[in-house]
Amino acid sequence: MNVLLDGAQMGALLAFAEELADAAGAAILPHFRAEIIVEDKSAGRAVFDPVTVADRAAERAMRDLIAARYPDHGIVGEEEGIVTGSSPMRWVLDPIDGTRAFVTGLPIWGTLIALNDGHRPVLGVIDQPFTRERFVGTPSSAWCNDRPIRTRRCTDLGDARVMLTVPAAGAKVADHAVFDAIAKSAQIVRFGGDCYAYGLLAHGLVDLVLEAHLDIHDVQALIPVVEGAGGVITTWEGGDPQNGGSVIACGDPALHRQLLSLIAGLRAA
Amino acid sequence: MNVLLDGAQMGALLAFAEELADAAGAAILPHFRAEIIVEDKSAGRAVFDPVTVADRAAERAMRDLIAARYPDHGIVGEEEGIVTGSSPMRWVLDPIDGTRAFVTGLPIWGTLIALNDGHRPVLGVIDQPFTRERFVGTPSSAWCNDRPIRTRRCTDLGDARVMLTVPAAGAKVADHAVFDAIAKSAQIVRFGGDCYAYGLLAHGLVDLVLEAHLDIHDVQALIPVVEGAGGVITTWEGGDPQNGGSVIACGDPALHRQLLSLIAGLRAA
Repeated sequence: MNVLLDGAQMGALLAFAEELADAAGAAILPHFRAEIIVEDKSAGRAVFDPVTVADRAAERAMRDLIAARYPDHGIVGEEEGIVTGSSPMRWVLDPIDGTRAFVTGLPIWGTLIALNDGHRPVLGVIDQPFTRERFVGTPSSAWCNDRPIRTRRCTDLGDARVMLTVPAAGAKVADHAVFDAIAKSAQIVRFGGDCYAYGLLAHGLVDLVLEAHLDIHDVQALIPVVEGAGGVITTWEGGDPQNGGSVIACGDPALHRQLLSLIAGLRAA
Repeated sequence: MNVLLDGAQMGALLAFAEELADAAGAAILPHFRAEIIVEDKSAGRAVFDPVTVADRAAERAMRDLIAARYPDHGIVGEEEGIVTGSSPMRWVLDPIDGTRAFVTGLPIWGTLIALNDGHRPVLGVIDQPFTRERFVGTPSSAWCNDRPIRTRRCTDLGDARVMLTVPAAGAKVADHAVFDAIAKSAQIVRFGGDCYAYGLLAHGLVDLVLEAHLDIHDVQALIPVVEGAGGVITTWEGGDPQNGGSVIACGDPALHRQLLSLIAGLRAA
């Protein structure tokens, strides 16, 4: 079921999504680059690393705000599972996307917040509280810190700035072939940009982001940011990416069409 | 010739190095994530991309300050070559280390500033003006934004957080073998941390940084930051890294010893 939102409703939801991002950032930042908590074996209690502590605190803070303001909305969060609401509106939360960046101190992890209307994500936030950068998108517009952003034109992979996430051990050989072919042909390649890479793509600084095996929490917030800035994001087969999988995002739709053909050819080989 | 610096001299030089970093940041930041300058063919003039414009402006600003304050000091800079001074003291400057990060909008490039006393770098700065992080080191101490930092203990590669720069095409097969072996055994691996990786190592967040083929501008500022925080930085053969080459930095000297043996074995194989 699709819910039609008018401008005032969307404005209120966007402002609320930013409240969620503020709350998550406040919960997470004290743990970023903090000391590892030393295990207390004598007390026999469970011990968590800073990223887990921060992840849980941020998700709890966001869930509390949603339950208070929109008690009929559903929630899907990485840490605490699914709350089914009476409304088709559902928030999809990933407090810390990019945990490897987080634990190594790199400020390119992010808090992902999406609102799905039962049909598709209609609002997405990629928030980086340490650098104070917030990418926000709807199906028709995107902003970075309240300034409108657009993807840039780039019709040739040879001119493209690319961010790739290296496939985990055990990935299919055909997946590696796709990454290798694109890495060899692109102008600039960076590895491991995490969710921040999609913000840079929406900002017109990166032309292509390619990742394998994303989860639903990882992908929903990215879609409005990329599409609202004029880009295209699909699965590697060209399908709807909102349930995750291997994802390709391009700033220029023409580049996206070329790359879907390239990927199909490499996987068929 | 080695120059003995007393505490007051060192304090003045540290304060001056921070002035250089301020000047470089002011020259660079307006160009970070700026639009590409469109070529004006009809006017027949040379056209530069933002990173080149920023690089040159920052190096000029730093050279002007050094010439005014320490006219007897030498200067080595990536853009304008060598100024030989009457003193053995020599500044080594790299206004933007990590140009690929810079052009893709990732805030992990840095301005590198070192002061060499004719014998070794006695002061190093890694400055990231967008995130407002400044790593400063001397042979005995290191700071991030004026707070003392220390490397962390990590005696086993299996527990190590590692940042690697992928070797360029054409690197030796033995170099690739070293990167592959370390990437397979480490706890967490990130690619392409650039100079920022050494700041994170000094901060106790990263245990090992490995890069091939650094230039003199790339490496001098890193040495006091790493050593001042308690880490070790050498060439892959265990030698003095101050003239560049393939470099290994570890937060824990015990891990460094193990890895030199590992590398020697892999290269002999």
